[in-house]
Amino acid sequence: MTDDHATHVSLLGLGAMGSALAETLVKAGIRTTVWNRSAGKADALVARGATEAASAVEAVRAGPLVIVCLFDHDSVHEVLAPLADDLAGRTLVNLTTTKPEQARQLAAWAAEAGITYLDGGIMAVPSMIGQPGASILYSGSQEAFRRHTALLDLWATSTYYGEDAGLASLYDFALLSAMYVMFAGFMHGAAMLAPAGVSAARFAEMAAPWLTAMTGELSGYAEVIDGGDYTVAGQQSLEFSNLGLFIEASTEQGVSPEPIAMVQRLIQRQLDAGHGTEGFARIIESIKHPTP
Amino acid sequence: MTDDHATHVSLLGLGAMGSALAETLVKAGIRTTVWNRSAGKADALVARGATEAASAVEAVRAGPLVIVCLFDHDSVHEVLAPLADDLAGRTLVNLTTTKPEQARQLAAWAAEAGITYLDGGIMAVPSMIGQPGASILYSGSQEAFRRHTALLDLWATSTYYGEDAGLASLYDFALLSAMYVMFAGFMHGAAMLAPAGVSAARFAEMAAPWLTAMTGELSGYAEVIDGGDYTVAGQQSLEFSNLGLFIEASTEQGVSPEPIAMVQRLIQRQLDAGHGTEGFARIIESIKHPTP
Ligand SMILES: NC(=O)c1ccc[n+]([C@@H]2O[C@H](COP(=O)([O-])OP(=O)(O)OC[C@H]3O[C@@H](n4cnc5c(N)ncnc54)[C@H](OP(=O)(O)O)[C@@H]3O)[C@@H](O)[C@H]2O)c1
Ligand SMILES: NC(=O)c1ccc[n+]([C@@H]2O[C@H](COP(=O)([O-])OP(=O)(O)OC[C@H]3O[C@@H](n4cnc5c(N)ncnc54)[C@H](OP(=O)(O)O)[C@@H]3O)[C@@H](O)[C@H]2O)c1
Repeated sequence: MTDDHATHVSLLGLGAMGSALAETLVKAGIRTTVWNRSAGKADALVARGATEAASAVEAVRAGPLVIVCLFDHDSVHEVLAPLADDLAGRTLVNLTTTKPEQARQLAAWAAEAGITYLDGGIMAVPSMIGQPGASILYSGSQEAFRRHTALLDLWATSTYYGEDAGLASLYDFALLSAMYVMFAGFMHGAAMLAPAGVSAARFAEMAAPWLTAMTGELSGYAEVIDGGDYTVAGQQSLEFSNLGLFIEASTEQGVSPEPIAMVQRLIQRQLDAGHGTEGFARIIESIKHPTP
Repeated sequence: MTDDHATHVSLLGLGAMGSALAETLVKAGIRTTVWNRSAGKADALVARGATEAASAVEAVRAGPLVIVCLFDHDSVHEVLAPLADDLAGRTLVNLTTTKPEQARQLAAWAAEAGITYLDGGIMAVPSMIGQPGASILYSGSQEAFRRHTALLDLWATSTYYGEDAGLASLYDFALLSAMYVMFAGFMHGAAMLAPAGVSAARFAEMAAPWLTAMTGELSGYAEVIDGGDYTVAGQQSLEFSNLGLFIEASTEQGVSPEPIAMVQRLIQRQLDAGHGTEGFARIIESIKHPTP
């Protein structure tokens, strides 16, 4: 326990995630005031020692540290915009999922109003909060992050990415986006095998270690990308990576080739631009420079 | 060493992969006859003890086991079609990358001609042949696979998938396709972070362990898919997985949202069909039943 644990926390929003965050605080013995738009969501927390505020402004005024975990950027704006004067001098930690630009907007608004702003991106589902494996990415006020690290660590592994308030969201989106795309690739493989009577479970047994092994290639691609020279020797060329056969095979299996066709389009634009002999990592150029 | 190593091998095709396969055989002391369409590719192998055949038919007649590793299905057809009578009674192992349907065609042709047929899908680059980590998937004649396992294991870990000759290719394509899609997801994340000055190497350091951890979700998705009931509790719903924010954020970062937009389309078709409250694994239905 550090001094930090003596902090009083005000928490706005008791949806699935806000409730998990509040519960962790209450369990850890942190003095916690909660508020939720609709009634009834605070009852269990109050029974365990939390204080319920009758309004958002009452919750904000209860202490120096205000956490918000609402549905989206618009709901955050709706709840906080009238409270700028009350928030002045306080620290605001926003754990609502927002776009990088929205986090930057909120940070600019907070700076204007004299509010210390820290943005967080939660990489966990509610049941993981307070458990090993949960991770929350932060950016914005480094001073706020430093002061409250012990408290933030109650929820998840806390990592700070920089003063630009949009960074946490950017890392969050980059990682989640890579995850969703990987999931779609798995689903495509499972769908291809299904007509041959292969269960998704059987494919998962093969795909999980295979994809894990293949994440070993990412650092090599990254080195080429950061070096900016896609002609370096020893790479699989774009020409060689032509995925036309995969698309035909998908279609012949009666399944949609969309996931692999997406990759083929990225390859094709580089082939069309005359880069066929260069390395596969060059597909990032198709993403970095979308066609107009 | 088993009896198997006494086998004589005829190998047709000395491209990058065929040469690696032949070299491994010669190093292991297997009597090997090689043939390649263009001259000169056999010289190094001959110097190490291989025999060069003057024609494909001469190579085929040299022994009971014939391996082909040519460019594609058409080149295999071109080389082997005139040799059906010579191949009769022999075992043919085709390591050329082909579609499942093409492997099945070749198997049917072989059956007609009295040729024992084994199809292989190589999951390795040439430098990996004979090294740990290389894997070759086989399907077709189980008897041929059993008889020659010790020899096949010289090249890579050999796994047999069934009598349907198309299975090796199907598994190969399913796994490779999942890999390429995962790579595109990584590239998308790296491209999103680049404008914020984050190197691809930095992102790879985060993405590799993150994606590895997330492969842990695949068996859970598979269980739901195999069970066929996407309404089971405890899953993230399709509504919740709405990726609109990710697409907007990509576009705001100036990068193409194509990889994540592909996933969103799969989600959207299920939302449109009224399945929003069901689990994310349901996106496989968008792949299994492509829109007409
Ligand atoms: N759940 C997860 O797995 C997860 C994971 C990572 C990040 N997150 C993020 O965490 C945030 C909260 O998610 P959740 O799962 O807790 O969502 P949720 O269960 O839907 O809860 C949404 C919360 O926002 C409140 N709210 C919505 N609109 C409001 C408005 N206009 N004014 C005041 N309050 C409003 C709701 O209040 P009412 O009770 O009055 O409706 C509720 O407390 C989201 O940004 C989400 O993306 C969630
Ligand atoms: N390289 C890899 O990383 C890798 C990985 C997995 C699977 N594979 C598969 O392995 C197979 C061979 O690949 P590779 O890398 O060795 O390719 P490669 O270096 O391009 O060699 C192609 C071979 O096919 C021969 N060939 C092409 N057309 C022919 C025709 N019409 N008649 C006779 N011979 C013909 C070529 O003969 P010439 O010398 O006369 O041109 C050469 O021996 C391909 O199906 C490939 O997909 C390769």
